[in-house]
Order: sequence, then structure tokens, then C-alpha cells
Amino acid sequence: MSDVHFKRMALIGIGLLGSSIALAARREGVVDHIAIHTRSAETLARAEELGLGDSYHQDSTEAVTDADLVIVCTPVGVCEVIAKTIADHLKPGAMVTDVGSVKGSIIKQMAPHLPDHVSFIPGHPIAGTEDSGPDAGFADLFGGRWCILTPLEGEPEENVARLKGFWERLGSNVEIMDATHHDHVLAITSHLPHLIAYNIVGTASDLEMVRNSEVIKYSAGGFRDFTRLAASDPTMWRDVFLHNKEAALEMLGRFTEDLTALQRAIRWEDGDALFDLFSRTRSIRRSIIDAGQEIDASDFGRHIGEGESEAEKSNTRL
Amino acid sequence: MSDVHFKRMALIGIGLLGSSIALAARREGVVDHIAIHTRSAETLARAEELGLGDSYHQDSTEAVTDADLVIVCTPVGVCEVIAKTIADHLKPGAMVTDVGSVKGSIIKQMAPHLPDHVSFIPGHPIAGTEDSGPDAGFADLFGGRWCILTPLEGEPEENVARLKGFWERLGSNVEIMDATHHDHVLAITSHLPHLIAYNIVGTASDLEMVRNSEVIKYSAGGFRDFTRLAASDPTMWRDVFLHNKEAALEMLGRFTEDLTALQRAIRWEDGDALFDLFSRTRSIRRSIIDAGQEIDASDFGRHIGEGESEAEKSNTRL
Repeated sequence: MSDVHFKRMALIGIGLLGSSIALAARREGVVDHIAIHTRSAETLARAEELGLGDSYHQDSTEAVTDADLVIVCTPVGVCEVIAKTIADHLKPGAMVTDVGSVKGSIIKQMAPHLPDHVSFIPGHPIAGTEDSGPDAGFADLFGGRWCILTPLEGEPEENVARLKGFWERLGSNVEIMDATHHDHVLAITSHLPHLIAYNIVGTASDLEMVRNSEVIKYSAGGFRDFTRLAASDPTMWRDVFLHNKEAALEMLGRFTEDLTALQRAIRWEDGDALFDLFSRTRSIRRSIIDAGQEIDASDFGRHIGEGESEAEKSNTRL
Repeated sequence: MSDVHFKRMALIGIGLLGSSIALAARREGVVDHIAIHTRSAETLARAEELGLGDSYHQDSTEAVTDADLVIVCTPVGVCEVIAKTIADHLKPGAMVTDVGSVKGSIIKQMAPHLPDHVSFIPGHPIAGTEDSGPDAGFADLFGGRWCILTPLEGEPEENVARLKGFWERLGSNVEIMDATHHDHVLAITSHLPHLIAYNIVGTASDLEMVRNSEVIKYSAGGFRDFTRLAASDPTMWRDVFLHNKEAALEMLGRFTEDLTALQRAIRWEDGDALFDLFSRTRSIRRSIIDAGQEIDASDFGRHIGEGESEAEKSNTRL
């Protein structure tokens, strides 16, 4: 473990990610002071009630003053405004990073405004839940998950190592890649899955031949799995699609092309084509479980402890 | 609770559903004798090793002989052959049912071949996991889940009540509807979700700009949710799409239409359209949890006990 340490960490935004960073950084003793900024007085008060930080600021320039680590944890769409606002208040030598799901746009939005005397290393922890807001955070969110850093060309090695060390202390594995590749990887592993989930839940809601109450009742047939992603924060996800437009459209195009082929296979009753696809997709879940990125439990472990007797609970299926 | 009881239950097929029925029926004492049939000698031997039944038969006609309850638990595509094979061996007064995910086709395949002296009531428990085979079964699979019965016109009320009572003993809630409506409801709540899951996993596997190892590593961004459904039994699902073709194509058409509108919203950066959809889909998950069809835990409860200290485990987030 790295012995990385920051004196004052400023969190710009205190939703699921910001609050989880606060809790994890506190638990690990990796920062001395946590300064929290959010524009909403209500959210800021809630963060204070939860004891997430040491100081609370409605003014972001106050929060970043004297901070040696600034982490932007807001929706991607407001990062340019934030960079402009905090730029003149950043301490020389401060490290500025973020947690946004898109990296190319973040660099375009923030880099031009930040002073040369700070180190700017965009980051993205691949971790989250469908919940949002300061109450949603928990210290273990990053445990065993990957965090991707996309340093700009010429960024000194030791700065990247320091931020890497910070995320490792929070429990993450860290990978370095360029922003464009990040945006492609995330378009398929995260953005397209969310878009599809939102879409199918929308389609199901709009049907006139099947009532919403029936969709809900019989959702255990598979539909319910999609509702988790479709319950994610709307502002965050709107911004993701607006700011990773090209990669999202590229992946969506490929998905639709494949789906059209599948539609044709159904129409022409090509059982072999269906069977071939359905067989080769089976192994990928096992690989994800083996890679430690998914729990090794049937049906997401839903049956563990659900309606079972105490005797059955102890006979765990994990 | 109904005091329904059967002397001999014959299970035709002993995969996830068959083995779960065997275990649940045994636990509830709702049958005296469980006769198990499967064509595969290996699977039959495994069922015997697991002690799932009282007698084991490679010949289905032997299994159904003298049975007062016959449950067909095979992929949908082989039901006609089964009906033809067992027809002459069914005891007068026997009840014949099934667990297939499609009901219109099952009726077309089976009803013409079954003798008048048996009662045929198609059924479908909306329960399952991504696992298959006799080892995948567990007694609580049906607990709190819905089971849909689609009796044919003229079926005596008391027979339907008897089968309803059987499923209630296994822990299910039971709903009666007509086969056509069932096939529409399941097309959106189960068949389309599986098709989309299989499709996106296929699309991701085929990308040349993102390696499969990266898809696996960063799957926690959302992709992994889809891999569960895409790990389901290929034969079962091929048969579902071949046998519920019209309803599946109808739902797929609506899904694609909606997705195309969403694609256009991304291309033209219509943030309001994206935000509107992403907002209205959020509440449906809460309704599903409130209806008891989903666990009330963030991120499918994945973080519970995953890499957490004992102290944190006891501070459950459920």
C-alpha cells in the first residue's frame, strides 16, 4: 500500500460518489480535512448531518482554497463551469481530478481553464449503485473495483503514481489508459447498457396491451434486472450521453445491427443462429465472476435469505 | 392453504424447474411418490445421486404410468413429442400440466394428443435463475413468485383449483389468464429482456476496438447486469423465441422504435428528451420492490458482505 496522504481534500459535489469517497478516505485516514461543496443548501445540510466532512461550503472557491486534492464529483455537464469558477482559487501544486463517466469531454471542458501550477489527472472509478445523493454513499463502494486514470500527455509520472496510490487506499485497482479508449470501453460496458435498460423500461411502460401492474407482477421473468440501471440518476446519465455522443452512437449502431439480425433469425425461425448466440454468451458471466467483478451467486443471490427459513439461510448457496 | 395432495407426481425433465418442483413438493409433503424421467442417462443418474425422486425412468411412458400429476418440465420445443409419447399411458383422471414460458404453442402442441380422460391445464411459474440442470434446483425457487395458469375453455373449476392449490403449497401466488395474454405479458417481461441481454453480450464480444478482457474488467459499469440473463439455458431460450415468435417480434419492434427515437435524441443532443425518459423509468423499480418481486437492496445487494469487515456486515444495508 502506498503511504499517500493529503492534508485537505475538497469534494465538489456530494452525491453517491462524493459521499463514498468521503467515507472511504476517512476510514483509511488518507486525508486530514474534508471540505465539501455543493450548490444545494439542502444537500449540503444533509451532508453535514451525516458528518461526511469537516467543513461545508456553498461556495466552491472556499472549498478548494488551500486544498491539495480537489475531486469533482458532479454530473459531467457542469465541469466546465466548475473549472472556470475554481481555477483562480487553486493552490499551487494541488492535484485536481474527477470521477466522471466520460473522459474526453472532461478534458475539453476543464483543461483549458485550469492553471499550469496544478496537476490535472482525470479519473473514473467504475463503481456505483442505482442510488444517488449523499445518503447513498458507503465506504466500501470502491473495494475490488477498477478505477481508470487518463492522464494528459506530459503529466509527471510521480503525480499519476500519487493519485493511483490514493485510489488504491480506497480499495480500487487502478488502470491507466488514454481518454479516447476509455470513452469507447465505457460506451460498451456502461453507457449502452444504461441506455438499453432505460429504453426497455420505457417501452414496457408504454404498452397498451399489457398493464403496468402486470409488468411489475411478472417482472421476475427477467425484466426486473433492467430496472436497476433504469433507476439511476437522470441528470448524470443525460450528461453522459450528451458528452460521449460519438462513442455511444457507434456502440448503439452495432447493437441495433446485431439485434436486427436476431430479429430476422426469429422471423425466419433460424433456431441454429439463435442457439449459437445464446451459447457463446454464456461463458462471459463466469469470466466476470472469476475476475472478481461479480458475486458468485445464482440470480444475484436474490434467494439467499428471501422467504427462507433460518435453517435454509445457514445452508448458504454462495 | 389447500390440502391438495397427489399420490404419484411424474416429472418429465429434471432441469432447474423440475428439480425445484421435486424439492419443494417433497418439503411440503404434497406428493407421495416422485417419478422422474429424462432422456439423458447421465442427467437421470445425477438426479438419482441428488435423491430428487423415488423412481427414475429413461422411458417417459413408465414415469407417467399410474401418475395422478404429470408436469412437463422440458424445453418448449419438445412438448408435442412428449404429449404423443405419453398419451396412451396416462391414467384416467390424471392432471397434466407444464412449466413452459410460452402457452399458446404448448396448447397447440399438446392438447390435440392428450386423451379426454385427463385434465390438461398449462402452467408457467415466473421463477428461475440463470443456472440449469438438476443441480440448479432449490426448494424455495417459487416462494413469493407468481405462477400463471392458462386453462382451456370448459376446464372444470375444481381441476383448476386443485392445480392452483398445488402451486400455492410450493409457495407461489397463482393467477389465471388466457394463453394469448400470457404470451404478450411474458414477451415484454421475460422474452424481450433475455433477447436484449443475449444481444448486447454478443455485441460486446464482437467489438474489435475494445478487448473482451476489458469488457470483463470494467463490467461493473452496468454491463455485468445483462450477463446474468445471457447465461441462461440456450436450448430453452431458442425454443421460446421459435414458439412465441409473433409476440416477441411485436415487442422487439416497439423496443427498436423507441431505441431509434432515443438514438435521434442523442444525435441531436436533445437533453430534455433523454432526461424525461430517464426520470420516468426510475419509479418502476420501487414498484417492483414494493410488490415483493425484488429484494430491497441497493445494487442487488452485491455490496453486502463483499469485501466488508464483519462489523460492516452486521450493519446491513438491506
